[in-house]
Amino acid sequence: MIIKNAIYYDGQRVVRGDFKNGRSDEEFDASGKLAFPAFNNGHTHLAMTLMRGAGDGEKLQEWLDNTIFPMEQRLTPELVYKASMFGLLEMIKTGTSRFMDMYYFVEETAKAVEKAGLRATLGTPITSFGTPYYRDAEEALRMAEERLHKGPEGLVDFCVAPHSIYLCDEEALIKAKELADKYGVPLTMHVSETRKECVDCHRKTGMWPVEYLDRIGLLDQNTVLFHATWLTKMEVRILADRKVTVIHCPASNMKLASGGVMPLPELLEAGVKVGLGTDGASSNNSLDMREEMKIGSLLQKSHRWDATVAGPRTMMAMATLDSKDLAFVSLDDVRMLPRHDLISNLVYSGGTVTDLIVEDRVIMKDGEVLTIDEERVKKDFLDAAAELLR
Amino acid sequence: MIIKNAIYYDGQRVVRGDFKNGRSDEEFDASGKLAFPAFNNGHTHLAMTLMRGAGDGEKLQEWLDNTIFPMEQRLTPELVYKASMFGLLEMIKTGTSRFMDMYYFVEETAKAVEKAGLRATLGTPITSFGTPYYRDAEEALRMAEERLHKGPEGLVDFCVAPHSIYLCDEEALIKAKELADKYGVPLTMHVSETRKECVDCHRKTGMWPVEYLDRIGLLDQNTVLFHATWLTKMEVRILADRKVTVIHCPASNMKLASGGVMPLPELLEAGVKVGLGTDGASSNNSLDMREEMKIGSLLQKSHRWDATVAGPRTMMAMATLDSKDLAFVSLDDVRMLPRHDLISNLVYSGGTVTDLIVEDRVIMKDGEVLTIDEERVKKDFLDAAAELLR
Repeated sequence: MIIKNAIYYDGQRVVRGDFKNGRSDEEFDASGKLAFPAFNNGHTHLAMTLMRGAGDGEKLQEWLDNTIFPMEQRLTPELVYKASMFGLLEMIKTGTSRFMDMYYFVEETAKAVEKAGLRATLGTPITSFGTPYYRDAEEALRMAEERLHKGPEGLVDFCVAPHSIYLCDEEALIKAKELADKYGVPLTMHVSETRKECVDCHRKTGMWPVEYLDRIGLLDQNTVLFHATWLTKMEVRILADRKVTVIHCPASNMKLASGGVMPLPELLEAGVKVGLGTDGASSNNSLDMREEMKIGSLLQKSHRWDATVAGPRTMMAMATLDSKDLAFVSLDDVRMLPRHDLISNLVYSGGTVTDLIVEDRVIMKDGEVLTIDEERVKKDFLDAAAELLR
Repeated sequence: MIIKNAIYYDGQRVVRGDFKNGRSDEEFDASGKLAFPAFNNGHTHLAMTLMRGAGDGEKLQEWLDNTIFPMEQRLTPELVYKASMFGLLEMIKTGTSRFMDMYYFVEETAKAVEKAGLRATLGTPITSFGTPYYRDAEEALRMAEERLHKGPEGLVDFCVAPHSIYLCDEEALIKAKELADKYGVPLTMHVSETRKECVDCHRKTGMWPVEYLDRIGLLDQNTVLFHATWLTKMEVRILADRKVTVIHCPASNMKLASGGVMPLPELLEAGVKVGLGTDGASSNNSLDMREEMKIGSLLQKSHRWDATVAGPRTMMAMATLDSKDLAFVSLDDVRMLPRHDLISNLVYSGGTVTDLIVEDRVIMKDGEVLTIDEERVKKDFLDAAAELLR
């Protein structure tokens, strides 16, 4: 698409003038708007919009045991579809065009993403303990392979998503990596989110989590690790050497009181690829990447006693990692004024996203979502939430 | 005003039914909306919207010396009026009806607040070193008294605002308190914002800042202290004994890397009155109290390694301290769904404020600001920002 009359942040500088994005020669008038790479939400559990606000303020393990797991026992494909559609609505309205998701019933989320017109990489969480949706890791891996065998669907592709070192045994982790390599897709998992996880791993294996994952062969340029809050210097080195991608989830880590803070300056200094993610709407409780950038920047500055780290351009680079699409905000938005520094305004002050273009398709125009019937999606979602509580 | 068909958060519970706010018997239809006490922004420098985004990422002292102070040399009454109007627009749109401000040219900000229809307590910062706007503390105190002598103006009243212990000598601080007591108005000041300030005070006086302020007689129920990040247990005790109000400014403290984190659980446990503030738009960079509640909650949970502290109801109580007005969000806002916990949604997920009622007057109705010509205010503000840079 040809973007006309643009003021555009190309990831380095704010530039003026027309430019091309995608393949089409159709024109899009961007007068009065700032264009920037649409957000890539690096870690989500999309359908958990259903649980937003449930059990807030409980400790992590109690919250999972008392609130989340009982609700997840009652999921159906239909509930996941409705909750995914609703999550996509929030993503579109906040300028996200792409995300990496770990949740049940990936076929349903895939259908929703196709309908909404976004990009996603989806994986069913694999655990060794089984869930209502599969008996054990073997069955989960077989389901994952069936999906991978069918191949990507439009802008949606699939990955292999072992949940974590504490919910997967070593055999399951190794088989997951073999499966990911067989199909050339990413392996994604949670790692080093809590201190307990790290200490338990060290007691059991004599190694810290990233060291352990490296020893069993899970780490390479196709590995994506979520959270990574408690890392040793040696682990930072390993992540750099193996070219692993890590996803920072500051709001979720803070809300669940993980205690650890991702050593972002060290990771960036070592050349590690770092993205940004909101985690599920149940532990954040929003899917807004703009807000996540601000919280991430503030957390790093505060934790490091250093106002110069994690500036707005660093946060934008993380939040738009591998972005191919475009989002827009109005240059007249109260939050975007004055114009001393548009990128600082975007990160710290905000500004309502007005438009979103994905792969030559206008998904939202002047605040109106074109691919989704907003009222219908909200109604379906409320029905789904009511059904979950029944 | 009679609020009809309401779902209302009264500060304790979410209740249904009509209720009265203010004196008028006029009716206001709140169908489909959540009503809640409008926000009270406990610490602002309103006209610093002019500097939003300028010098982001500089260290505190360099930022003040290189960016803020040179800009502040060039302020005029007209610039302050235009910048205040613009800041009020952002406040109205984000549900704030009341604030406590410390900045130059209070008459101009007072005019703007009256025009916008909000409530405010305003004070000129008093320093012993002079500014372009007065020679020394004596002149600043004389200006403050002149203003106090004229009395409040509508919903705007005035306070005495010595800047801090590091910009005021002891004589100025004591005279400021005498002046505040003479007129029965609050004394407001920054305190214990940085570790340096605390250590310098201890070196000079042998006391920590709150202890020192108590010793020279500045602390009572009419004292409001901003920041209070580095506090000893003894100082928490003093604040409780003297019935001082303290204002938590989490985003500003984090962004400027103050390092310290207000000991909120201890303050609340001791019975200290704690409010919430954004600080100026130049160090936040927003005036949005909803965002401030989320950041404050996350900071406390993260810092304390305890997911149970600083929950959504605590944050709402702080953000709406002494509120007399009403704000509304749509119950159908994507961010307010599902409805497991409306207050958790409001604090962590957001929701666009649609309406604001102050003292029986509708200030914003269905997203339209009724007291301010939005386009005119934005244009004037951009002119002001351009003039400041000239």
